[in-house]
Amino acid sequence: MIRPASEADHDATWEILEPIIRVGETYPLPRNIDRAGALAFWFAQGHDVFVADADQIVGTYYLRANQPGAGSHVANCGYATAMSARGRGIGRMMCEHSLDRARALGFRAMQFNFVVSTNEGAVRLWERCGFAVVGRVPGAFDHPVHGYVDALIMVRPL
Amino acid sequence: MIRPASEADHDATWEILEPIIRVGETYPLPRNIDRAGALAFWFAQGHDVFVADADQIVGTYYLRANQPGAGSHVANCGYATAMSARGRGIGRMMCEHSLDRARALGFRAMQFNFVVSTNEGAVRLWERCGFAVVGRVPGAFDHPVHGYVDALIMVRPL
Repeated sequence: MIRPASEADHDATWEILEPIIRVGETYPLPRNIDRAGALAFWFAQGHDVFVADADQIVGTYYLRANQPGAGSHVANCGYATAMSARGRGIGRMMCEHSLDRARALGFRAMQFNFVVSTNEGAVRLWERCGFAVVGRVPGAFDHPVHGYVDALIMVRPL
Repeated sequence: MIRPASEADHDATWEILEPIIRVGETYPLPRNIDRAGALAFWFAQGHDVFVADADQIVGTYYLRANQPGAGSHVANCGYATAMSARGRGIGRMMCEHSLDRARALGFRAMQFNFVVSTNEGAVRLWERCGFAVVGRVPGAFDHPVHGYVDALIMVRPL
């Protein structure tokens, strides 16, 4: 069900990302970014991109090294679940898949650099997946509803 | 003494960066990165690069937004002082300059994402410049002498 993404998945990926970016409550991307800009970010060099394919594409994530060189043993991921497919455990499934992939690639830990603190569903999900908060940056995210809110750094050893 | 860098400063910038990168104790860059790769990183799109010019170039730093979009009110910098010019307060001067520049550009805070915990001189300097540790990532840096050591996230409001 989860498989590597190809160029044929670009339309579906954008369909998932666009509403999430436009709402602007979770990712620090320009809310008015266009399709090309968003796909350039998601499929950036060094990103392994996957899709959750259940007849249609219901989720996507990328896996990369969080830093080059002497930081390249720590992985980083970004996940997105289609608005219409929320509550079905797809985020959890993608996270478990990414942890397995990262382990297989020899990464020693996974780090999330920027979990918006008001995104409580995500924070709970990452905690259930074994992540712990190791840092909190005051007011790092300009939330469209709540204003400046904290961003969390979360880590899980592999 | 501190002024914007131009292409004419590329040689001097590389002369400062190369030994720091080769020693590999502070920046998570590949230790064998070449001149073009290092300069592409230092002068990346979105980086404002400065040099400390005291007849010769003794230091350089870049200033950028740490995140795009809803995270773009937080600045980030990287600094490098020539090995031969250590202990003369150049790092401190560059940091103060960067804080002034960031303030003038409207940034609300400055964040360092990856301060190597064993780089005690840097940690002390950033604390003297008003930064506080807000996070610690266990074993995030593969130190050539000490092995896996922690990386610190440090922040200072502006």
